[in-house]
Amino acid sequence: MLDKYFEDVEVGSIAVSRGRTITEADIVMFSAFSGDWYPLHTDKEYAANTMFGQRIAHGMLVLSVGTGLVTMEPGVVLAFYGMDKLRFTNPTFIGDTIRVETEVLEKKDKDSFGVITVKQEIKNQRDQVCCTAILKVAVNKKGTF
Amino acid sequence: MLDKYFEDVEVGSIAVSRGRTITEADIVMFSAFSGDWYPLHTDKEYAANTMFGQRIAHGMLVLSVGTGLVTMEPGVVLAFYGMDKLRFTNPTFIGDTIRVETEVLEKKDKDSFGVITVKQEIKNQRDQVCCTAILKVAVNKKGTF
Amino acid sequence: MLDKYFEDVEVGSIAVSRGRTITEADIVMFSAFSGDWYPLHTDKEYAANTMFGQRIAHGMLVLSVGTGLVTMEPGVVLAFYGMDKLRFTNPTFIGDTIRVETEVLEKKDKDSFGVITVKQEIKNQRDQVCCTAILKVAVNKKGTF
Amino acid sequence: MLDKYFEDVEVGSIAVSRGRTITEADIVMFSAFSGDWYPLHTDKEYAANTMFGQRIAHGMLVLSVGTGLVTMEPGVVLAFYGMDKLRFTNPTFIGDTIRVETEVLEKKDKDSFGVITVKQEIKNQRDQVCCTAILKVAVNKKGTF
Amino acid sequence: MLDKYFEDVEVGSIAVSRGRTITEADIVMFSAFSGDWYPLHTDKEYAANTMFGQRIAHGMLVLSVGTGLVTMEPGVVLAFYGMDKLRFTNPTFIGDTIRVETEVLEKKDKDSFGVITVKQEIKNQRDQVCCTAILKVAVNKKGTF
Amino acid sequence: MLDKYFEDVEVGSIAVSRGRTITEADIVMFSAFSGDWYPLHTDKEYAANTMFGQRIAHGMLVLSVGTGLVTMEPGVVLAFYGMDKLRFTNPTFIGDTIRVETEVLEKKDKDSFGVITVKQEIKNQRDQVCCTAILKVAVNKKGTF
Repeated sequence: MLDKYFEDVEVGSIAVSRGRTITEADIVMFSAFSGDWYPLHTDKEYAANTMFGQRIAHGMLVLSVGTGLVTMEPGVVLAFYGMDKLRFTNPTFIGDTIRVETEVLEKKDKDSFGVITVKQEIKNQRDQVCCTAILKVAVNKKGTF
Repeated sequence: MLDKYFEDVEVGSIAVSRGRTITEADIVMFSAFSGDWYPLHTDKEYAANTMFGQRIAHGMLVLSVGTGLVTMEPGVVLAFYGMDKLRFTNPTFIGDTIRVETEVLEKKDKDSFGVITVKQEIKNQRDQVCCTAILKVAVNKKGTF
Repeated sequence: MLDKYFEDVEVGSIAVSRGRTITEADIVMFSAFSGDWYPLHTDKEYAANTMFGQRIAHGMLVLSVGTGLVTMEPGVVLAFYGMDKLRFTNPTFIGDTIRVETEVLEKKDKDSFGVITVKQEIKNQRDQVCCTAILKVAVNKKGTF
Repeated sequence: MLDKYFEDVEVGSIAVSRGRTITEADIVMFSAFSGDWYPLHTDKEYAANTMFGQRIAHGMLVLSVGTGLVTMEPGVVLAFYGMDKLRFTNPTFIGDTIRVETEVLEKKDKDSFGVITVKQEIKNQRDQVCCTAILKVAVNKKGTF
Repeated sequence: MLDKYFEDVEVGSIAVSRGRTITEADIVMFSAFSGDWYPLHTDKEYAANTMFGQRIAHGMLVLSVGTGLVTMEPGVVLAFYGMDKLRFTNPTFIGDTIRVETEVLEKKDKDSFGVITVKQEIKNQRDQVCCTAILKVAVNKKGTF
Repeated sequence: MLDKYFEDVEVGSIAVSRGRTITEADIVMFSAFSGDWYPLHTDKEYAANTMFGQRIAHGMLVLSVGTGLVTMEPGVVLAFYGMDKLRFTNPTFIGDTIRVETEVLEKKDKDSFGVITVKQEIKNQRDQVCCTAILKVAVNKKGTF
């Protein structure tokens, strides 16, 4: 979705990313990087007593890995405006494998560039949706970079 | 904000976090973790030719660091529902120092727990807002964890 | 303990930190960072033949994680003088969850600031003491930072 | 091998390094660092359907860890010229422990320094050869650094 | 090159990757991961007295980053056989930006799959070749994964 | 010091390690790993207003790097008892290069193994002592591992 210049983006098209297994190491690394060591993610004993029964990945970890799974072509993406309706709908456990499905909802011509609106769903190997969001991204037109 | 049980959260209260300087190492580490090596973040030569004139931090990096800057008390946070109106309004450059300001907008009693709505602004040392969002978080009541 | 200005520190008070599970990833990351790849920590076959029967965490890993578990308030801590009687009394295995208990032993007024002496015990989920030490920390008085 | 000045290197001598267990965390960290997230290394579901039946370590991971296992003495190594006949002959699975065996094949005097040719074999705990290569390294003579 | 099934690979075709700036953080992270802390890479004072006059990136770092810069398509790559004539021809300094140029030299049909031989050059922003090698990779035919 | 069996350790002998430059990346990585983001180490603006005038490395970072600089021989070290009189006497700034000097103070025969007492000094490139400590380590006798 983010690997095509504005002219080639088709509303309604869907792309599915490769998968990535979320490991215990990922949760430790993200806790470390972000500084968010909330015990639901990092304390086995604490997590066993929550409604999840075990440690779960941070929502932001899932979302951050999601951005890396989506193929982006150098020169295409101008800027990332933001997100709407970001919802975490299912937990991601250690050992789950996630992938990203993106669908183009809308494209708007802004003369020197374009803005595309994309629906993103992050799903696990059980086909459960873990995270869903609407993204707005400014993309270049051909020959403008 | 996320260090108080539901009963003690006050609508209108504001909290300011400590600061964290975003270094070149942070950008490399986040690119590595997320898998998002888009050259605007990781290629000095490419970035010099963009409207920013230099490498900038990933939006998700800023947001992820933001979650770690906010103090969370074990036992208080039940689950993180999601975000609305997430907007990236100013770039974060290497060497900028960011902090998080959170304001409680609303609290809703759900019997066995509560839901608080929070406005979050991530600001840099020049007091520019880099990122703004509305968060919904489920928090415990006293004595329920 | 390290989140209060000198005037508010009470001799005899005790604080217990949140917990953190020490994972295989933590041992790899600490070996990598420190450069200490001693095979007792990093070679499964070698460790199986030692008195511990398996890989154990580095003493310095446990101590370093301990410093991060203790809450420190910006503006409070001036400098960390050192440690005495640091002893490693039980091994930390992969999957153990550690917490820090700190007790204020003494406080000394040095006019423009204060020095507090603290006893620190790092315990695991079986309530065994893994590491114990006496720390001396210079802390600010109110209004001096 | 790389811890002796040119004069002391003996053709035919063999050195065996300590071992290092390759963990799931190592594979995640190397994927992150290198940017090579090929699903054979990082997607449990995908890897289960390949001829290996599970995730395997990257060839470059094994080779990179190999360079760190070999003892190098500061002042001895001048430059690393390159490699020939690098072959990956057996996969490295999560939990395997690898070591490096190096044999000096040849030494050439270049007046102000020397060049040694080394055969390197990386073996696992089952004594299978995972990787083999011929290296050429420029080493200092005594008193020249 | 490694994003096409065997049938679509064309001998003589050339691909150029995106770039990645090699930072001081990359050198620290690779030293940490590999365990290779040779002072030419990690000791500013030592490196100042070598023929390079400053710290340089590890050869294996450059090569590892190179593998991540090359686009690989899930399902296409079967196995990585090895390398020949790997040569490090110019140093990579902190702040250099490298890219990979790959040229298909040969393709061989092995019935159920194919083997392609590729020449790889890693170049910096001054168009100097830092590293060159010949790679052999087993790739799938269409419909066989 | 920690690369010799008990019989070969000589009281009074001194060893000097290789050096390692402490980079901004090291401070970020140690903050991340330990969870200690105290702003003296991680917030440029805050650190500028302290007596140090800039960010300094964590004491535990310096000590942890120190353990990795000391050469340890597999089979020699049995266990690390602890430390006494650990003092941080000078700050370590970004860009400083540290080395470890160890002196054997005492050796005690415990029949099946031995205990050595070592004085450790971590010095920077200006020959200032940053950290000093007394360590006790249990080491094997020849032929007992």
